[in-house]
Amino acid sequence: MAYVDIVTILAVLQFIVFAMKVAGARGRYGIKAPATTGNEIFERYFRVQQNTMELLLCLLPGLYLFSRYLNPMWAALLGVVYLAGREIYAASYVKNPAKRSVGFALSMLPVLFLLIGGFVGAVRQASGF
Amino acid sequence: MAYVDIVTILAVLQFIVFAMKVAGARGRYGIKAPATTGNEIFERYFRVQQNTMELLLCLLPGLYLFSRYLNPMWAALLGVVYLAGREIYAASYVKNPAKRSVGFALSMLPVLFLLIGGFVGAVRQASGF
Amino acid sequence: MAYVDIVTILAVLQFIVFAMKVAGARGRYGIKAPATTGNEIFERYFRVQQNTMELLLCLLPGLYLFSRYLNPMWAALLGVVYLAGREIYAASYVKNPAKRSVGFALSMLPVLFLLIGGFVGAVRQASGF
Repeated sequence: MAYVDIVTILAVLQFIVFAMKVAGARGRYGIKAPATTGNEIFERYFRVQQNTMELLLCLLPGLYLFSRYLNPMWAALLGVVYLAGREIYAASYVKNPAKRSVGFALSMLPVLFLLIGGFVGAVRQASGF
Repeated sequence: MAYVDIVTILAVLQFIVFAMKVAGARGRYGIKAPATTGNEIFERYFRVQQNTMELLLCLLPGLYLFSRYLNPMWAALLGVVYLAGREIYAASYVKNPAKRSVGFALSMLPVLFLLIGGFVGAVRQASGF
Repeated sequence: MAYVDIVTILAVLQFIVFAMKVAGARGRYGIKAPATTGNEIFERYFRVQQNTMELLLCLLPGLYLFSRYLNPMWAALLGVVYLAGREIYAASYVKNPAKRSVGFALSMLPVLFLLIGGFVGAVRQASGF
């Protein structure tokens, strides 16, 4: 399980780094809190962080349950694909939001695998097989 | 615990479906990323997803802790009420945001029950009863 | 672990209180759903809630993993600092967003300690020391 926990924490820290980039972009583009609009580039950093929050909330239970019901090592590996996918997503979204789909797929698919795997494992246990 | 884990994953998948509907509404109403405003119907789908994220973040620890300290089967049943409440919330919000309160209550109340139940259980254990 | 679970639930309930204040501010400043802009004071309440959601998502795995790998009592104490820091953050942000940094630091730093502590503990276990 320790590998899964390491990946869990790395995913949270990655999200914190994205949040720090939003804070940096606030200064650079002169977007004063509480505003979250007013500059296209700032909004890209902001949406990267928001979308990562949404996916992180899905990743964490996926990592935990896949790991518990199926296989911790595979859970950790899928988590590593997620981490790489999110880096690609963030870099491409800031350059050009229209090009965000590859990084999105590379981080969304491992999350879906983790959730569906965890679901299959939990159903199997609940039904006694 | 397996029933609770099944409900956990269903709640996450429900949230992902709401997110996909936002992506669909982006195309349908011509709201290009990073924008999240500009069309009232798009904004309804977006707020359904955002509000569900907020509640999901409260639901997951509630399910887990109520289940651990009190009763996994009741936790799972409260989770099923949440799932139904969110479907009602989403459908009614998109039709007319002013009518969202029934679905909101039906998904908020189980979350509060889970959290308060988990709190009572944890306090009881911490105080040695 | 029960103390950590109590703090976990208090942090979620604190977030729900912040969300209720957003709902109250909707009425007071006439911001009808799905809008989330249009009044500066409303937007402050909204951003307090949003920022707290971001941090809560980082706090919960931090509390859990620090507690498991290092020390549950220290995890709970860091969680109490977080709770106090968020109260200061919320109160100062609503008065004047430019003054939000003390409360922000007081709630961000315990989250970072929890995550880094959990990371060190998980790496130590994964590497067999």
